[in-house]
Amino acid sequence: MTKKVDAARLRFRPHFKTHQSHEIGRWFREKQVDAITVSSLSMAIYFIADGWTDITIAFPLNIHEIKVLNTIPEAISLGLLVNSPTTALKLCETADRPYNCWIEADTGFGRSGIEASDSDAFRQIIHILQSNPHLFVAGLLSHFGHTYQAKDKAEVSRIYNTGMNALQALRNRLQPVCPDMQISVGDTPSCSMLDDFGEADELRPGNFIYYDLMQAAIGSCRIEDIAVALSVPVVEIHHGKRQLIVHGGAIHLSKDSMPGEHGQPVFGRVSRLEDKGWGPPLEGVYVKSLSQEHGVLQFRSDIPADIETGSLLGILPVHSCLTADAAGACMTTGGAFIGMLDKRLVY
Amino acid sequence: MTKKVDAARLRFRPHFKTHQSHEIGRWFREKQVDAITVSSLSMAIYFIADGWTDITIAFPLNIHEIKVLNTIPEAISLGLLVNSPTTALKLCETADRPYNCWIEADTGFGRSGIEASDSDAFRQIIHILQSNPHLFVAGLLSHFGHTYQAKDKAEVSRIYNTGMNALQALRNRLQPVCPDMQISVGDTPSCSMLDDFGEADELRPGNFIYYDLMQAAIGSCRIEDIAVALSVPVVEIHHGKRQLIVHGGAIHLSKDSMPGEHGQPVFGRVSRLEDKGWGPPLEGVYVKSLSQEHGVLQFRSDIPADIETGSLLGILPVHSCLTADAAGACMTTGGAFIGMLDKRLVY
Repeated sequence: MTKKVDAARLRFRPHFKTHQSHEIGRWFREKQVDAITVSSLSMAIYFIADGWTDITIAFPLNIHEIKVLNTIPEAISLGLLVNSPTTALKLCETADRPYNCWIEADTGFGRSGIEASDSDAFRQIIHILQSNPHLFVAGLLSHFGHTYQAKDKAEVSRIYNTGMNALQALRNRLQPVCPDMQISVGDTPSCSMLDDFGEADELRPGNFIYYDLMQAAIGSCRIEDIAVALSVPVVEIHHGKRQLIVHGGAIHLSKDSMPGEHGQPVFGRVSRLEDKGWGPPLEGVYVKSLSQEHGVLQFRSDIPADIETGSLLGILPVHSCLTADAAGACMTTGGAFIGMLDKRLVY
Repeated sequence: MTKKVDAARLRFRPHFKTHQSHEIGRWFREKQVDAITVSSLSMAIYFIADGWTDITIAFPLNIHEIKVLNTIPEAISLGLLVNSPTTALKLCETADRPYNCWIEADTGFGRSGIEASDSDAFRQIIHILQSNPHLFVAGLLSHFGHTYQAKDKAEVSRIYNTGMNALQALRNRLQPVCPDMQISVGDTPSCSMLDDFGEADELRPGNFIYYDLMQAAIGSCRIEDIAVALSVPVVEIHHGKRQLIVHGGAIHLSKDSMPGEHGQPVFGRVSRLEDKGWGPPLEGVYVKSLSQEHGVLQFRSDIPADIETGSLLGILPVHSCLTADAAGACMTTGGAFIGMLDKRLVY
């Protein structure tokens, strides 16, 4: 990803919400990355503690947090999302340190942000922000999250280009009131599959650090590129039902699922752990259901004889961001452990 | 619940996985409760630290944890679930302190445990356990988790009685090899709706401490009995789409959903916070979707004018156990806070 971003001469601001790890953050630093994205104030504080000095909090500003934000040293460059005149006014009144203000544009995903066609709303926010010298209008930020529902590269490409055209047109319309707005985008499917990022100035992919089953289904990666597995101990074997019970449940994997070959919900796929990492997902085996701590693994054929009570298996997650987020809790409330690239076990 | 259990002259061993809180645990102690259930070793350790001395870990024993279990002082009475001969053998070989061993019987839920009809498997485990003087065969434990899918009290009652009859018959068949086996059950729907618990010796409900939307739908409680809400700040208002964006997502609420009035998935209902707690759920408003940190609240009618950016709302969860479990993470990774009975806000 660093090579691709360098080739396109863009700023790389990877999203760190996926791993939330100082250690993995340092791998990026070794690749000369110095700007990052996070999704909450507390995540920003966590990475400031490890020396990061240029951070965008890519979540609509929660005005209750301004007081805490103001206490962050000015040596830290902080980007915020200011998505409404009300929030802009509140920030204007209370900001007493510099902020880079991004306005989130919705180009079709339909979650947060202002519809990219509504230039007046953007203008209004820009005018408010320009009244406080601490506030720098950095540009337009967008998340093309609808690529996560795309079927293939052609659809990802269509979503990206439609979105980028809308952002570019919006930037042109806003040029008279704010001449140097940057464009920040970067969902993982687009960043993985495309090479031409059009008028973007900055890319913010995050999920690609691990990838997951959903990304493999879209075509962002191959199954063998998935770089995270939850290591789970087998606690029961039901040969009759061809099921294993493992310690690894909803609190470890989250309840995100994707449709299996017969339309049934699949909560993960199952691999054998190996000396270095894990093998390919086992054919005809999937995570059938999850309760708080229990995972039920369903086999199509007989359970192999070498899988015993106490065996450790690896679960490839449907959505790695949620699994990795849960892993912190899992360290304190369960026995399972998340393996990252190499196999690290608590047992 | 304490009154009901006392009237039925049963042992009360409430499940503490729902709240995972020292403070709430102490409320039980004030009611003379001295025995508890947890679902993991680390949860047991957490409650031992607050003085609990009689704990059942109601999750199939993970043999990798025996070494740590052996280090727990003998003054703590520990109950384990030993659900297979392999696990029993391993425990026999390595136990060097006393354990109360329960064998989990599956009476139709179909998750963990041995089918209640398979007396031989129970006998085999009992024989193995009886060979080590540290291991006391306490009895049969079952979770009638299929009551969570029940439509009404009649169905809950049917599931309970069928399950209890199967356990009673199993106990009779095992009487020659193990004369004094106890029966431990206690899903929240049965414990909430029934008064006659048949041959049970012990009840282990947990969810009732908070209840949730799913329990209200089954009939275990009224909506106004739900004792937990996630306090979320409004970060964006979309009058056109009649949607609010709040800071409160999948990492705070979990992705558990239930069908709404038109079959659409509902991830929670929405209340106004009040000086003491919160009001009834707002009519025609529900949590429509969740991503990692974002929640999208959908209104049927116009959004009331007094709901502004920065307003705090309460989300009643679909499944309180998962929300409460996530709340620990939420305190460290997000800005939202879980309110328990009284309103406690971080802002």
